[in-house]
Amino acid sequence: MEKFMIIGERIHCISPTIRKALAERNPEPILKRAKEQLDAGAHYLDLNIGPAEKDGEDVMPWAVQLLQNEFNNVPLALDTTNKKAIEAGIKVYNREKGKPIINSADAGERIEMIDLAAANDAMVIALCAKEGITRDNDERMAYCTEMLERGMSLGLEPTDMLFDPLFLVIKGMQEKQKEVLEAVRLISEMELKTVCGLSNVSNGAPKHLRPIMDANFCAMAMQAGLTSAIMNPCDQRLMETIKTCDIINGAVLYADSYLDL
Amino acid sequence: MEKFMIIGERIHCISPTIRKALAERNPEPILKRAKEQLDAGAHYLDLNIGPAEKDGEDVMPWAVQLLQNEFNNVPLALDTTNKKAIEAGIKVYNREKGKPIINSADAGERIEMIDLAAANDAMVIALCAKEGITRDNDERMAYCTEMLERGMSLGLEPTDMLFDPLFLVIKGMQEKQKEVLEAVRLISEMELKTVCGLSNVSNGAPKHLRPIMDANFCAMAMQAGLTSAIMNPCDQRLMETIKTCDIINGAVLYADSYLDL
Repeated sequence: MEKFMIIGERIHCISPTIRKALAERNPEPILKRAKEQLDAGAHYLDLNIGPAEKDGEDVMPWAVQLLQNEFNNVPLALDTTNKKAIEAGIKVYNREKGKPIINSADAGERIEMIDLAAANDAMVIALCAKEGITRDNDERMAYCTEMLERGMSLGLEPTDMLFDPLFLVIKGMQEKQKEVLEAVRLISEMELKTVCGLSNVSNGAPKHLRPIMDANFCAMAMQAGLTSAIMNPCDQRLMETIKTCDIINGAVLYADSYLDL
Repeated sequence: MEKFMIIGERIHCISPTIRKALAERNPEPILKRAKEQLDAGAHYLDLNIGPAEKDGEDVMPWAVQLLQNEFNNVPLALDTTNKKAIEAGIKVYNREKGKPIINSADAGERIEMIDLAAANDAMVIALCAKEGITRDNDERMAYCTEMLERGMSLGLEPTDMLFDPLFLVIKGMQEKQKEVLEAVRLISEMELKTVCGLSNVSNGAPKHLRPIMDANFCAMAMQAGLTSAIMNPCDQRLMETIKTCDIINGAVLYADSYLDL
């Protein structure tokens, strides 16, 4: 069993600081967030530049090179709906530490992101969704299979696709949670890799509850087979959970010091 | 889905304080431990009097009445290998808040504890073991079925049996953990109830790690279907996990205050 893969979520243009830094090509705030996440144990960093319709083709390669030059070719997830920006990012991307991940395709309007991944030997996050919120696991699995077939027909390895069953907010969609976890299990049983936007589950909950909800949902999802998450690696409780579940799953050998590794 | 059942483990004759209090019929230390556990959220209390070969028939009914009189007929698990002590305890037991639980039967020498439960309309913890450590899940499931059949043939409801797949220590038996979790899932899929001695998993690990290991193992086991545990309800992190997984499993309705309920 492979170690759980942690994709740091904190370089995201939803943050005013990051948005401004990207617009002004100001390295410092971006490098700071990157370092915090890598120090905390992130394996990949997500680089979300937003839709970036105007300057995506400039900003993405600038940010890719900025991060990879500073942090020893750290592997990245290129996160935007702008295909040209992703292509431009991949063009300068160094694969020494891992393939680029395209974030993200779905079974609807964004299906061509799979083609883009295949054409560029990249990995791709594949949301099990088409329009709106997926109704049930029959629909989720239909989208999963549809995207898997498209990827394979274009030469992608199944393990280059990270399937996201779409985690839903607990507060407001409590009755959906067991089904989402079951979807993780169904996808894992096909020996496919999975990913999620973990903090979705605790959206809208009081601040002190969020790390507790995220960590426990993550433990349950790791039991169901979840293999990676886009998440905040600076959340200590969540990191303790991931390291402990990696031990229980046998992905990492037990040592009394396992939390410090 | 039913709420997870918490059986408080802390009235146990392995504690010198409790052993002395039981021997001297001294209520105070026993009531103190009981109150702490009930205040923390225990649903049942385990009452472990040890083998109690000499005075079990006296001490068990004394302790049962002591606890039930003080705490509004709190339901109890009667924990000893002495069958006569269990019978004597059940004789004075008040069922208003729940049946007594006999702790425990196995598929070997202690199989007759199932008969005792059936004869007394009690619940029973059924360890999926015969001699030594169970080899694999084929063996676990064979013992589970064997005990289930015996119980049902004697008129026990399947839901009056709590099957314990026997949680194993992570430090030293790391490679067994996934299989134990899988056993929980297999037993749960038969719509049977499960239980465990939760703190087994963190035995021998550094003190600061134990609550982290117990809580995360519990979350994974609850995803696999675990329905109850013999555990320390005064472990705050573990209680946060159980309350959160009860929310995720839909056993308790979400409220922002759910940790305080």
